[in-house]
Amino acid sequence: MGADEGAAGAAGAVGAAPGPAPHPAGDGGPPPSFQQMWRELLPLGRSAGGGYRRFAWTGPDLECREWFREQAAVRGLAYEVDRNGNQWAWAGSDTEGAAAGPAAEGSAGDAVVTGSHLDSVPDGGAFDGPLGVLSALAAHDELRARGTVFTRPLAIVNFADEEGARFGLACVGSRLASGALSRQDAHALRDADGVTLAQAMEAAGQDPGTLGPDPERLARIGAFVELHIEQGRALAETAHPVAVASAIWPHGRWRFDFRGEANHAGTTRLEDRRDPMLTYANTVLAARKKARLAGALATFGRVAVQPNGVNAIPSQVSGWLDARAPDAGTLESVVAEIERAAGERGGRDGVHVEVTGESATPLVEFDHALRDRVRALLGGEVPVLPTGAGHDAGILSASVPTAMLYVRNPTGVSHSPAEFAEEDDCAAGVTALADVLEGLM
Amino acid sequence: MGADEGAAGAAGAVGAAPGPAPHPAGDGGPPPSFQQMWRELLPLGRSAGGGYRRFAWTGPDLECREWFREQAAVRGLAYEVDRNGNQWAWAGSDTEGAAAGPAAEGSAGDAVVTGSHLDSVPDGGAFDGPLGVLSALAAHDELRARGTVFTRPLAIVNFADEEGARFGLACVGSRLASGALSRQDAHALRDADGVTLAQAMEAAGQDPGTLGPDPERLARIGAFVELHIEQGRALAETAHPVAVASAIWPHGRWRFDFRGEANHAGTTRLEDRRDPMLTYANTVLAARKKARLAGALATFGRVAVQPNGVNAIPSQVSGWLDARAPDAGTLESVVAEIERAAGERGGRDGVHVEVTGESATPLVEFDHALRDRVRALLGGEVPVLPTGAGHDAGILSASVPTAMLYVRNPTGVSHSPAEFAEEDDCAAGVTALADVLEGLM
Repeated sequence: MGADEGAAGAAGAVGAAPGPAPHPAGDGGPPPSFQQMWRELLPLGRSAGGGYRRFAWTGPDLECREWFREQAAVRGLAYEVDRNGNQWAWAGSDTEGAAAGPAAEGSAGDAVVTGSHLDSVPDGGAFDGPLGVLSALAAHDELRARGTVFTRPLAIVNFADEEGARFGLACVGSRLASGALSRQDAHALRDADGVTLAQAMEAAGQDPGTLGPDPERLARIGAFVELHIEQGRALAETAHPVAVASAIWPHGRWRFDFRGEANHAGTTRLEDRRDPMLTYANTVLAARKKARLAGALATFGRVAVQPNGVNAIPSQVSGWLDARAPDAGTLESVVAEIERAAGERGGRDGVHVEVTGESATPLVEFDHALRDRVRALLGGEVPVLPTGAGHDAGILSASVPTAMLYVRNPTGVSHSPAEFAEEDDCAAGVTALADVLEGLM
Repeated sequence: MGADEGAAGAAGAVGAAPGPAPHPAGDGGPPPSFQQMWRELLPLGRSAGGGYRRFAWTGPDLECREWFREQAAVRGLAYEVDRNGNQWAWAGSDTEGAAAGPAAEGSAGDAVVTGSHLDSVPDGGAFDGPLGVLSALAAHDELRARGTVFTRPLAIVNFADEEGARFGLACVGSRLASGALSRQDAHALRDADGVTLAQAMEAAGQDPGTLGPDPERLARIGAFVELHIEQGRALAETAHPVAVASAIWPHGRWRFDFRGEANHAGTTRLEDRRDPMLTYANTVLAARKKARLAGALATFGRVAVQPNGVNAIPSQVSGWLDARAPDAGTLESVVAEIERAAGERGGRDGVHVEVTGESATPLVEFDHALRDRVRALLGGEVPVLPTGAGHDAGILSASVPTAMLYVRNPTGVSHSPAEFAEEDDCAAGVTALADVLEGLM
């Protein structure tokens, strides 16, 4: 079955989707190119400062979702929104007849799925998320252009609310689908204005009553491959535009409360002070050193000072440690060493140190067999990289075999309007993803 | 002339003051004791947490001012409020006849003045300010009990708005009187609710139209002696309950802006970071070290972080340095060394450092002759201490010979409900002040 015919049949199966009628792929017009897709998507949700504000279920996010629906339509892909608001565009298997699609039988566990997300962090960049969705669509088109026979169904997915910028929890769509987030906890999520996730979904025309685990859908997936811009510079110094993910490091957040004694900055002798700012400062530097020695990451990016007055020695400084490491043991020992350094310095400063764990996410190790297969499909020489960032692929890895590809980021900047990938590297990412999908067929 | 008669005559000269008629001192009842005055004053403006919130021209401050007026009245002292809202209680000279008082002629440059302030910082202690006013009243009573002949007029003063807690500028009453603050600048002062100083004074029944320099009043003062609780622990390790001030250290505020690059705390390799928190932390520790080596004070008590997110390497950290030193040269070199250390570390961190001076107050050296005379009157062995804190005495020192006495503070804690002086030390302060005033007669 040719691409056009099969896809047209699948699209016909989901004609209930609202909005303009899908392009009949049989019209024969080519789908929009990778560059054309970028031109369409780039203006959506971009603020005056150049950063993106595509928060889940807000206007800009809905524009992105409508754009995704149109992309499915122009390709004749079977479009559906699942019970958790994730968007899917299905190409049926060429070898199982025209009925393949979202409701098709007989392909359990076979589907190859790729995609990412279109929402953003506050003032985020253009690539984090969208690069994975656009590359998925372009890779699909590449396979059709190559004349690849789809021996399995292929789906492109746009996961809902990956960044968690609005409701404070990341990967809501994939967490719900995999059961990592309960329906009850999802209904308790509220944004800064007190709007619940359910209210926001309802306002966007999505029924929140259906939120919950989606094991049948996940059971259809034989492999999920997410392409993502690299968030770091590991590839920048190599000849490789693309890498394969090994794992998502275990990570967590710890609040360090440093309690000293408020006093007059102009009159209190240095030797009479119990200044928690000193203990905090020493802990910031110790965290960097301990992390460097252990090959881990440690960051104090948030601090709160009481009373925070120019001429007042603080009574209390609280600093939040974000720490990540290749394995749980290293993470635990790095945090313990930072805690010990804080306590020792606190003893010298007359400052009490209390450490409270606020969150902990265990190691995600991507499926070894799939990782090795993906690497082999890319010639066997591509770098294998861990990351400290969470992804829908990390959430799904508990339910289905999952792999990730990273596209080189020359500056390493992420979650910022300065986030960037070269056009040639993006194209290499599309080719790599197409090669992987073809190999998984 | 006995105390009662002379004081009664003076009090009659300012009968225009509103409120209850002054006690005729001739009634013969003894004035309230030092302990009794404390009992009356302690409840005024005390918050549930034990700290004081006596902000200028608010209800609690007005209660304190009314209490001061009553203290003048029960002692038969001539009460007046000057054009800047400072309260005065005058005992005329016993040797110049009964007409001595605020408007008396012929005593230019002779008056001995003592006092302090009754307003407080937010959640301040009971002693900073009130100890000087109560000790002044008690020293007056002590001199009367001793039968000291007042060869000059004696005045007790309560300066308005010394702490600057409401309008952001300290020593407003003494700055206006001495010309260090212009009437125009005073009228521009606003509190956090947008209420101007003029509006606040008017609401309290004080005409703001009279604000301005008061050279004639200052010209009447031969010596001003302010007693204050020590803000520090220099006396705590000595056998001395009282010290004499040498100087108020030059001091200033500098804002350090550390500009790096916002990035993802979970994905950015340590070597790829430009983390301004590291540069800030190193600068905090460098400031402490440079200050210690130079015998100066340096404090970072206020910090602001952008974006201040747990998983975000900050784009910018701003820290405010409060620095003080025995002399201008030392202060300048300490700040220059801290700035150099910040710049060097910033170079290693890829962080740009910019330092902006926000305020600078030059050295106040108290009148040497008066200081030596005061010290001799106290037996010649009392310690002579500098301080880093500003005082009305520091402002007035530009206009009149000024001295200060400090009363021992066992913990050194200041600007806090924990501020404290032993009862015996307070009594020793009253005796010392009485000895000094007697000697200056």
